[in-house]
Amino acid sequence: MTYSSLTCDCLETGHWDRNRFEAARKGGLDCIHVTLGVWEDFRETVREITKWRRLIDDHADLVTLANTVEDVEKASQTNRTAIVFGLQNTAAFEDDIELVGVLHELGIRVAQLTYNIQNLVGSGCWEPEDRGLSTTYGRGVVREMNRVGMLIDLSHCGEATSQEAAELSERPVAVTHSNPREFVGEDVELPIRNKSTHLLRTVAEKGGVVGLSPYPRMAPDGNACTVERFCEMVEWTLDLLGPIAVGIGTDLNLGNENKMAWFRKGRFAREFAIKPRGGATKWPTWFSSPEHFPVIADGLRARGLSQDVIDGVMGGNWMRLFDESFKPMS
Amino acid sequence: MTYSSLTCDCLETGHWDRNRFEAARKGGLDCIHVTLGVWEDFRETVREITKWRRLIDDHADLVTLANTVEDVEKASQTNRTAIVFGLQNTAAFEDDIELVGVLHELGIRVAQLTYNIQNLVGSGCWEPEDRGLSTTYGRGVVREMNRVGMLIDLSHCGEATSQEAAELSERPVAVTHSNPREFVGEDVELPIRNKSTHLLRTVAEKGGVVGLSPYPRMAPDGNACTVERFCEMVEWTLDLLGPIAVGIGTDLNLGNENKMAWFRKGRFAREFAIKPRGGATKWPTWFSSPEHFPVIADGLRARGLSQDVIDGVMGGNWMRLFDESFKPMS
Repeated sequence: MTYSSLTCDCLETGHWDRNRFEAARKGGLDCIHVTLGVWEDFRETVREITKWRRLIDDHADLVTLANTVEDVEKASQTNRTAIVFGLQNTAAFEDDIELVGVLHELGIRVAQLTYNIQNLVGSGCWEPEDRGLSTTYGRGVVREMNRVGMLIDLSHCGEATSQEAAELSERPVAVTHSNPREFVGEDVELPIRNKSTHLLRTVAEKGGVVGLSPYPRMAPDGNACTVERFCEMVEWTLDLLGPIAVGIGTDLNLGNENKMAWFRKGRFAREFAIKPRGGATKWPTWFSSPEHFPVIADGLRARGLSQDVIDGVMGGNWMRLFDESFKPMS
Repeated sequence: MTYSSLTCDCLETGHWDRNRFEAARKGGLDCIHVTLGVWEDFRETVREITKWRRLIDDHADLVTLANTVEDVEKASQTNRTAIVFGLQNTAAFEDDIELVGVLHELGIRVAQLTYNIQNLVGSGCWEPEDRGLSTTYGRGVVREMNRVGMLIDLSHCGEATSQEAAELSERPVAVTHSNPREFVGEDVELPIRNKSTHLLRTVAEKGGVVGLSPYPRMAPDGNACTVERFCEMVEWTLDLLGPIAVGIGTDLNLGNENKMAWFRKGRFAREFAIKPRGGATKWPTWFSSPEHFPVIADGLRARGLSQDVIDGVMGGNWMRLFDESFKPMS
């Protein structure tokens, strides 16, 4: 496979500008999966798509849009970072199954089924009860995403919704940015964002990939997480799921402070029931910029992992999954 | 050119179902340009696009979507009618120039700049005053349609808006469904829908095509228009504009009665200032179904026109124009 050594951070959000794209180049990133919407409806999502396209056009010497893995390869060959468009919610589909295909046509390649709370499709991880996918629309969206070639992301979904979607999906599914709850434990700010061993095993068995994150609210040891401890978690997860099911999805949210209220309560609430700490995330010094991405590879090498396994974790596994996921079902 | 003998009705509206598609096949129509929206905003237009796609899928033995002239050729070779998606207004672009390209990506290939009244782009033909294209957005939309490959239709536009757009456009423009006002005269219900000789000449000089219509409210002799009289108008227009600038756009609006109020006053008025007769259009017996399309060719043959010229009028000229219009500017 020609894509086995491409690198990919499978979830970054926040503010994007030339400085950040330059940092991604310095970090040798061939591909970043970015978030275009959470609570945005269809019309608002189309606006975000067109804004992102102009942003990419304006910095075409540094970045390019990727609709396929071939596009990532071309980006890498021309020393640019390929941007994969994703959504962290299905709000953009509204109540219209047709919009899944329309958004795929417009470039969306990944969508998380729910963002923290209950929506038309299923439950988020912050809900006290998760009744799984809604029978008609939720299951229909999973099938439609399979059909058109949009990768299902379960990161912020609740346990039952995640498990049901992973089992129902006819194509591999992803957890782009969560950690194994069994390894991290409950002593972090958002243990609910991490995933059960049962779910992770299901994802891996389906051919999916799990993206691990140094995000302090869910990383092992929280704000005190070192690169060594992070890499220990990577190795633990590799032991659990095997070498082709583990990747990186840092959740790096630089410049996200102004949008924090939008992510947390959208327009559905005046006050959010669960109140995590606001303000800027305190990223560890060893990972506070896309520029630091190679630090993770160095940490994995220091643990004695083979180059093949490291290549898979640093991006090859995402490329394999993207290649299997982004085209319409034949 | 392989497309010179393809047939095309460059404007039909109203209700579509299997019976009508079968009638189009009986009429030997290789291509019909249909209307997906007038006052619909972007979201509503996307809904119409997805509804039309399902309609086409449901009758895939009779019809297929055309994004290019090659698609029309393929339709003809498989005995199907190619559907070209069009809008009779720029309401779908809202105030967002980016939506021109987005709607092109989703299949819209033709858009009329205004529908009867003033909009953000320019003036319609029913306005007492027409101040031309709006300086910033109107001219910008013309340039953007040129850039992405969306054919500009001037049929319901006012005289000044039409003239300015025809002159500004860097690509040929169309009048898909109007008649020459000089030939028809003022003694019809809607003389304002017909076009001045000056404008028609400008359209032809730019490489555009004018589609003539037996619609009784604007055809010569109104409801009494015979096929002979209609063909006399075709020949008169050919003499005026030359053999490659004339086509057919019947405006056949079967089953449109329920939507008449929507076309006439959208949601912008409770009562329309100009009140044309409501109710179903009384189509002439010689043209009341797509099945009757060959009657026009017969009428032109009876006038002694050459087969080459007849082929151009019956669709070849639209195919040439579509071929020059539907792809992004290089």
